Amino acid sequence: MTMWTKKNLLDIESLTAEEITTVLDTARSFKAVGRRAIKKVPALRGRTVVNLFVEPSTRTRTSFELAAIRLSADVINFSAEASSFKKGETLKDTARNLEALNADFIIIRHSASGAPHFLSRVLDAHVINAGDGAHEHPTQALLDAFTIREKKGRIAGLNVTILGDILYSRVARSDIWALTKLGANVTLCGPPTLVPRTFEQMGCRVTHDFDEAIRDADIINLLRIQHERQRKTMFPSISEYANLYGLTKARLAKTKPDALIMHPGPINRGVEIDSELADCDRSVILEQVTNGLAVRMAVLFLVNGGKHPIESPAT
Amino acid sequence: MTMWTKKNLLDIESLTAEEITTVLDTARSFKAVGRRAIKKVPALRGRTVVNLFVEPSTRTRTSFELAAIRLSADVINFSAEASSFKKGETLKDTARNLEALNADFIIIRHSASGAPHFLSRVLDAHVINAGDGAHEHPTQALLDAFTIREKKGRIAGLNVTILGDILYSRVARSDIWALTKLGANVTLCGPPTLVPRTFEQMGCRVTHDFDEAIRDADIINLLRIQHERQRKTMFPSISEYANLYGLTKARLAKTKPDALIMHPGPINRGVEIDSELADCDRSVILEQVTNGLAVRMAVLFLVNGGKHPIESPAT
Amino acid sequence: MTMWTKKNLLDIESLTAEEITTVLDTARSFKAVGRRAIKKVPALRGRTVVNLFVEPSTRTRTSFELAAIRLSADVINFSAEASSFKKGETLKDTARNLEALNADFIIIRHSASGAPHFLSRVLDAHVINAGDGAHEHPTQALLDAFTIREKKGRIAGLNVTILGDILYSRVARSDIWALTKLGANVTLCGPPTLVPRTFEQMGCRVTHDFDEAIRDADIINLLRIQHERQRKTMFPSISEYANLYGLTKARLAKTKPDALIMHPGPINRGVEIDSELADCDRSVILEQVTNGLAVRMAVLFLVNGGKHPIESPAT
Repeated sequence: MTMWTKKNLLDIESLTAEEITTVLDTARSFKAVGRRAIKKVPALRGRTVVNLFVEPSTRTRTSFELAAIRLSADVINFSAEASSFKKGETLKDTARNLEALNADFIIIRHSASGAPHFLSRVLDAHVINAGDGAHEHPTQALLDAFTIREKKGRIAGLNVTILGDILYSRVARSDIWALTKLGANVTLCGPPTLVPRTFEQMGCRVTHDFDEAIRDADIINLLRIQHERQRKTMFPSISEYANLYGLTKARLAKTKPDALIMHPGPINRGVEIDSELADCDRSVILEQVTNGLAVRMAVLFLVNGGKHPIESPAT
Repeated sequence: MTMWTKKNLLDIESLTAEEITTVLDTARSFKAVGRRAIKKVPALRGRTVVNLFVEPSTRTRTSFELAAIRLSADVINFSAEASSFKKGETLKDTARNLEALNADFIIIRHSASGAPHFLSRVLDAHVINAGDGAHEHPTQALLDAFTIREKKGRIAGLNVTILGDILYSRVARSDIWALTKLGANVTLCGPPTLVPRTFEQMGCRVTHDFDEAIRDADIINLLRIQHERQRKTMFPSISEYANLYGLTKARLAKTKPDALIMHPGPINRGVEIDSELADCDRSVILEQVTNGLAVRMAVLFLVNGGKHPIESPAT
Repeated sequence: MTMWTKKNLLDIESLTAEEITTVLDTARSFKAVGRRAIKKVPALRGRTVVNLFVEPSTRTRTSFELAAIRLSADVINFSAEASSFKKGETLKDTARNLEALNADFIIIRHSASGAPHFLSRVLDAHVINAGDGAHEHPTQALLDAFTIREKKGRIAGLNVTILGDILYSRVARSDIWALTKLGANVTLCGPPTLVPRTFEQMGCRVTHDFDEAIRDADIINLLRIQHERQRKTMFPSISEYANLYGLTKARLAKTKPDALIMHPGPINRGVEIDSELADCDRSVILEQVTNGLAVRMAVLFLVNGGKHPIESPAT
């Protein structure tokens, strides 16, 4: 539990395996808090957490908001739409203004890769990356790793297949960093336009054959096809994608019987995954959501120093 | 106080008179909390309440939010506009995701009748209906009943007239269920297009003669004409409606001298009611708002089990 | 500390110098709270504060929200966009509905001058003006006075120059009232269309010569050019404005070496002020933000009565 010394969580790339493991271990204690009637610990009482979401995301914002609330922090939601950005203020000025309100944590989601890193250089507050462009989404990778470890008892040596729009996915990048650091064998699969061979440089196997990609997988991680982002069609059509790369009962039958299905959500039923498979007992999609909250509590706790006895999570 | 065993509040139709009375009795203790300087009780400390408003309503959402806050719960507002609905997620998936964040209560407003009932079948969390389509708005009926009982000392035997757009009104449906169960004589009145005779099957009297409808009323409950919803005009014009069915000083003069004026708000001054009448001493419109908060505290308290000594509202 | 008896904060015009000084003295104790790890005092525990922002402003709303949170109050944000205003409800009805929810404080921003004064006449709750039309923005003036006094040790006798769009600026009006009451010499400067001579009646000097206006200034307070409001162009163009009235390094060189730069934010870098000057050591722009929070805590504390021992700010 003493492996964490970082002030911020900017990405997975710069973390060691030990640091990642520290987050997962800490999250395990916090997960128990969510099952209590009184779901609170006093760890961050009186601290101010700002959710600075320049790109909208109710799900991730809500998860961070609840994580902060359960640590007894005060949370301010500062969304792009309503903010001074409209009035032409720069990101740096907005963030420094929030810090001037004595914000202790700035959780930022931004469409520009590197925005959290930039903020970490101009702020004293703790900066947490909640997704930056197509770059990284570190807490998603941590919750994915947490879920795999909890379900499978380990990560090292497992075969993890990530399917879908890898090219534009910050989830894929963070997952690849986290899982390869922890010793998993990562396979990427999807249409060639979305899964270029250059990803092999990150230590992954790249294939465009769906059945082959999932045959030996212990974990099948389906990424979301983002209708709303993909303007220039990188594949013929949604239904064509579903035909070629959607997980169906027939395809699942040809995998290991204990292979688990993961998805960062929100799912497109009938596109990446058959509707009934999303709810089957091999799907851990909702547990990922629950684990995300525990992981975010752990991250807020650790970057804050997380050692004071009163601040240790009761288990 | 031991008459409540339900896990959810989905509608008034399925409640017994005893259950309704239990809510009203409990609300009475909670109303006192709102008059204190420190307007809080620890009943739901550490519980997570999600306001899932798929149809916008600042007033009702705020009332539920404050009810939860005063019970010391943590509240997350999850609005339709900002949410994953835009990304094509189903209501069921959204709700199950919120539950995966360990939400204890889901308060839902939705344009589809039956949405809360549907959620109650797929969730373990307590589900509270904050208005579903033209079906029911149970907490509005409970606050109306509370207000009548508080002002008149009883409900049984009273003449309650509900005026306006009955056909499309979930308030009217819930009011009819609650008041007839508690023994009131309910009269419905409005333009024939908005008050069909079929409502007589619910145990009400239907009339289209305004003066006759209010002559013997102890309670005159004016519903809101919803400009924003009524596309296909069900009556000639707003001013025509005001002429025929708006409450004026002259019309009020022909009623019982102690008849009370109610309205679920927001009021259209000069349409359903003359502006000065809205503020006269026979109007209890603002007390309805105050009572709504107490009733919503009572509902959250009761569905949660509401028996633990530390959780009993101090009076 | 016993100089405050007002129930509301509606404007600076009606305050005495002693009352203003009481706010500044109280804010000094609260500023220390923001530097602690646990940034809370129990002064307003269980009180309900409503942010009624009919004109959007994330910055000011956030500052008030945090001020209330740090006094342990519960805060409800009630924005115009989402509210019943859309449904045609009047401001009076909305405010009385909020009060019926036992709101103790209504903080209002509104495009109509006098809206807070109007509310104060129909409500029992404490009303705080967060900016009304082009009329006043009292907490901005209080934080400006606080910042000047903290940095310079006094206000009386100082030369304060306010630059920019004075005509449409509620900040300018409130600043003029506060600073002249406290004995400063106030100079106004900007294009003749935006700085009419009529302001001399408020006890200020008016000039349209930028270099002359700032030459002897102890404080240079740059107002924001509001692109988004100024429809009918009151000056040729933004770049023309920047040329004539923007603060540059060359112009700053001709001022007193200890003259301080202030700005209510959000700043337009390169318009009112050269980008590098906004961040130089003579700029106190971010300290104004920090002080704003302390001043708003002081205002909430004082209008509430602010005497009870448990409610005194720990220092």
